[in-house]
Amino acid sequence: MAMDGYRGFLGLLVSALLVGFLSVLFTLIWVLHYREGLGWDGTALEFNWHPVLVVTGFVFIQGIAIIVYRLPWTWKCSKLLMKSIHAGLHAVAAILAIISLVAVFDFHNAKNIPNMYSLHSWVGLTVIILYILQLLLGVFVFLLPWAPLSLRALVMPIHVYSGLLIFGTVIATVLMGVTEKLFFALSGSKYSTFPPEGVFTNTLGLLIVVFGALIFWIVTRPQWQRPKEPNSIFLQPNGGAQEGVEGSAINFNNVDKSDSELNSESTARKRNFIIDEAGQRSTM
Amino acid sequence: MAMDGYRGFLGLLVSALLVGFLSVLFTLIWVLHYREGLGWDGTALEFNWHPVLVVTGFVFIQGIAIIVYRLPWTWKCSKLLMKSIHAGLHAVAAILAIISLVAVFDFHNAKNIPNMYSLHSWVGLTVIILYILQLLLGVFVFLLPWAPLSLRALVMPIHVYSGLLIFGTVIATVLMGVTEKLFFALSGSKYSTFPPEGVFTNTLGLLIVVFGALIFWIVTRPQWQRPKEPNSIFLQPNGGAQEGVEGSAINFNNVDKSDSELNSESTARKRNFIIDEAGQRSTM
Repeated sequence: MAMDGYRGFLGLLVSALLVGFLSVLFTLIWVLHYREGLGWDGTALEFNWHPVLVVTGFVFIQGIAIIVYRLPWTWKCSKLLMKSIHAGLHAVAAILAIISLVAVFDFHNAKNIPNMYSLHSWVGLTVIILYILQLLLGVFVFLLPWAPLSLRALVMPIHVYSGLLIFGTVIATVLMGVTEKLFFALSGSKYSTFPPEGVFTNTLGLLIVVFGALIFWIVTRPQWQRPKEPNSIFLQPNGGAQEGVEGSAINFNNVDKSDSELNSESTARKRNFIIDEAGQRSTM
Repeated sequence: MAMDGYRGFLGLLVSALLVGFLSVLFTLIWVLHYREGLGWDGTALEFNWHPVLVVTGFVFIQGIAIIVYRLPWTWKCSKLLMKSIHAGLHAVAAILAIISLVAVFDFHNAKNIPNMYSLHSWVGLTVIILYILQLLLGVFVFLLPWAPLSLRALVMPIHVYSGLLIFGTVIATVLMGVTEKLFFALSGSKYSTFPPEGVFTNTLGLLIVVFGALIFWIVTRPQWQRPKEPNSIFLQPNGGAQEGVEGSAINFNNVDKSDSELNSESTARKRNFIIDEAGQRSTM
């Protein structure tokens, strides 16, 4: 990576971390200062874990998990290690999302409030289920060493697409949740008088949108992708894995990086181009 | 495009059109059957134009505008024509979005309801302003023939990124709007008793999410991009446009298609590859 690109990346990464950190901080201030605080007793204190855990896990940690391959200082680390960190962060996010769900169901049940009637709950539950399926599929296809290259190649574009779709949908769901909670908490037209809580929590909503925008920019810049390793093994024309290769999971860089190139009518041409390039590298 | 890819594309296109059409239909049924109907008199009838115009223009038409280059039967049309259709559809969407905004401000002012206090309004107004800026920038840089190739190359990745970010943010804003309106219209815990209007309008929200997901899938498949034309003129190493070329606007296919390739450290290599390819085509 050229020095210029590296500085640009660092600037955006620091911005994303800052905005993500601010989002978590704002959520904490919201529930501790403007709302009732935190607890696990079936009251509003338990409900308040819902936004805290969602913003911390399902927004901030998921966002970092998405861009973890983009950190240049990890490019010397093995692909298997980076996959483990990617999957591990997503697993932490999934656990926090599930606990956040328990908090809100517990609160509803203790207060005899019906569950699952709002659009927020419909989209939110769907996206948590999809997130867990995505995580399991990712572990079985990409992290564990058994899946053949052809399957990895087939699943990779879907994995990337559905990962980003889920992340965007989570952010949309958070915005619905903030809207819903503010109309409850500031009912009787209080919200429309621009109270500090309304302005503060609207700002939290904007911060989360900006965090999402930064993550999407970072992850879609091709020049910030983890580079192919010189010893990488490329797709065979028959789509099968080479036998007798140790540590194969870390060698499928072409599959991992070719998100947008596979299943294309020009795949064969591009593949030849990449193999050519690899040939040149190996003679250096 | 191979026949297989063509069928897959058609299936997804028909799905997107169907889901988009259903979204508009559901919105109409919502305001005409469950709400007060449509009118332009400062009452709820005027407000009701807000969801109808947003879903028709800012969701459905914007979505179609985004994928218009992907329609294989338009690949024989000139790039200038397709750019005009792309810009024209976005302009129609912008006009409908602006009228939808007038409807809601009119309604608020007639009823003495404060404006711009909710997160929905903050994100919504921001995204309409960004959409108009994006449209103007797009017209000046890509549609009109005066911008140098170097500028087009610089702006293209930003244009694609911000276009998709705006589209996703519009959908998130619609979901907030639906949430807000349902909590107003079905207040006093009516929403939580699963009334037909609640279930129906939640389903509308899901349809809009699915429409967005289909548009994102279609637009991010590289094999469904408009192919480069045999007579296309590629970026010069100095970044300047060639002089004396008529209809230059339709010849910048490399710039238009290289969204994700420019500004990359490997641009030079890829550019040579593309030029090679063009050379091969021209000898066929």
